[in-house]
Amino acid sequence: MENPQPTAAFIIIGDEILSGRTVDKNMNFIALELTRIGIPLKEVRVVADIEEEIISTINALRKKYTYLFTSGGIGPTHDDITAESVAKAFDVPLECNKEALRRLEEYYINKNDGQKINDARRKMAFMPTNVTLIDNSVSAAPGFIKENVHVMAGIPNIFQSMLLSVTPNLSGGKVTHAHEQTYYIGEGDIAHILKKEQKEHVGLMTIGSYPFVEPNGRIGTNVVIRSTDQALIKQVNERIDQQATPLIQAQESNN
Amino acid sequence: MENPQPTAAFIIIGDEILSGRTVDKNMNFIALELTRIGIPLKEVRVVADIEEEIISTINALRKKYTYLFTSGGIGPTHDDITAESVAKAFDVPLECNKEALRRLEEYYINKNDGQKINDARRKMAFMPTNVTLIDNSVSAAPGFIKENVHVMAGIPNIFQSMLLSVTPNLSGGKVTHAHEQTYYIGEGDIAHILKKEQKEHVGLMTIGSYPFVEPNGRIGTNVVIRSTDQALIKQVNERIDQQATPLIQAQESNN
Repeated sequence: MENPQPTAAFIIIGDEILSGRTVDKNMNFIALELTRIGIPLKEVRVVADIEEEIISTINALRKKYTYLFTSGGIGPTHDDITAESVAKAFDVPLECNKEALRRLEEYYINKNDGQKINDARRKMAFMPTNVTLIDNSVSAAPGFIKENVHVMAGIPNIFQSMLLSVTPNLSGGKVTHAHEQTYYIGEGDIAHILKKEQKEHVGLMTIGSYPFVEPNGRIGTNVVIRSTDQALIKQVNERIDQQATPLIQAQESNN
Repeated sequence: MENPQPTAAFIIIGDEILSGRTVDKNMNFIALELTRIGIPLKEVRVVADIEEEIISTINALRKKYTYLFTSGGIGPTHDDITAESVAKAFDVPLECNKEALRRLEEYYINKNDGQKINDARRKMAFMPTNVTLIDNSVSAAPGFIKENVHVMAGIPNIFQSMLLSVTPNLSGGKVTHAHEQTYYIGEGDIAHILKKEQKEHVGLMTIGSYPFVEPNGRIGTNVVIRSTDQALIKQVNERIDQQATPLIQAQESNN
């Protein structure tokens, strides 16, 4: 029996995000991509380059969610400890993956910028046993899949190409659709309408409410209805419209 | 006795980040600010607007780190459940905070855009017992501090003003300094130098290594040395320089 609604979590591994040195660019990309294919992203964690932290985070999340994705820590330097941490999380050996090594050797033989294969780069072929490789169309060094854990690079263009190469093989569930509408009224003035609608459809849809102020000072609220049921979204949207419109008109005629 | 090196964690509360609807803008801001004042950010989690998730995450992190910060979920709508979740995490009642209510009433009395105080907006005054308010210079509704947990708004300009109003009161530890230098050489070609330097200074400094490719195809590595000891940073930086420079020269003369 297939899991009717798969779930996912994402771990960003890297001191550079926590120190503020680097602005994360991968979280929003994976959030949109997983939403698109019907695998809701349920949790994200950013952890430091510390082996125990990575291991405990991987073990907590791989058991809780259908799919786990990681970014960062699979390069050639001493601070790249993700592959080893995944092996330890699964309690399996780290081994030289022959196909990964072949790809690395081929890539560096063909480079004409002075970069050659060496021990540091061979380190990128060391992975837990029994993995499936994830293609790296940018710089050869592959990511890998160990059971439900998808280990990918942190550099945004490599991360993105790796993610897009694995998502076609994932079993998505029902796709969650979203409808967003802008109301020129304070969040606190339509809160009661949204609350009532949400209460009547618990578990079937969620309403998100995001206030904003335009540069000219005009305030408003973006209302996002999210559900796997598009007919329900349409229905709820119309009901919110019907109730909010008179309030907005009344407010405008008062100003 | 003061904690010699305080630590921090940050929880981003919000379905809109996990669905990809909204790009987080707060993580990098808080990372830089905490680094600046000597309170290293050790972990970030993004969780959905689900009460049990928020409670368990708050309880896990408030005990593990000196300071915990949260963003999001303190507005007037049904999906704003952070204050109630914090009360439950601490097992204390949620009560109407009189000073918070006073600020809200004053703010809405003076508004001339039709927005008035109402039940939804009064909800923003409900907080756990025994809190300290965090000023909101943008839209009045305050955040709050419950023990070591700092509860702030998710809207970036409000989040930023709230954070900057609380950080002067926090006890920072030694400030971690960073020195970043660009080497025009592949990460894999200086990995052995960085590894050796790191090994000799475990616990005293960390070396991060971030490869890049310039638009013209030129590759390189940014090396970041981080430590509370600026003299050590300088020393290690010079040693890396001395070892890397001949490699770069050799590579350039080969090309």
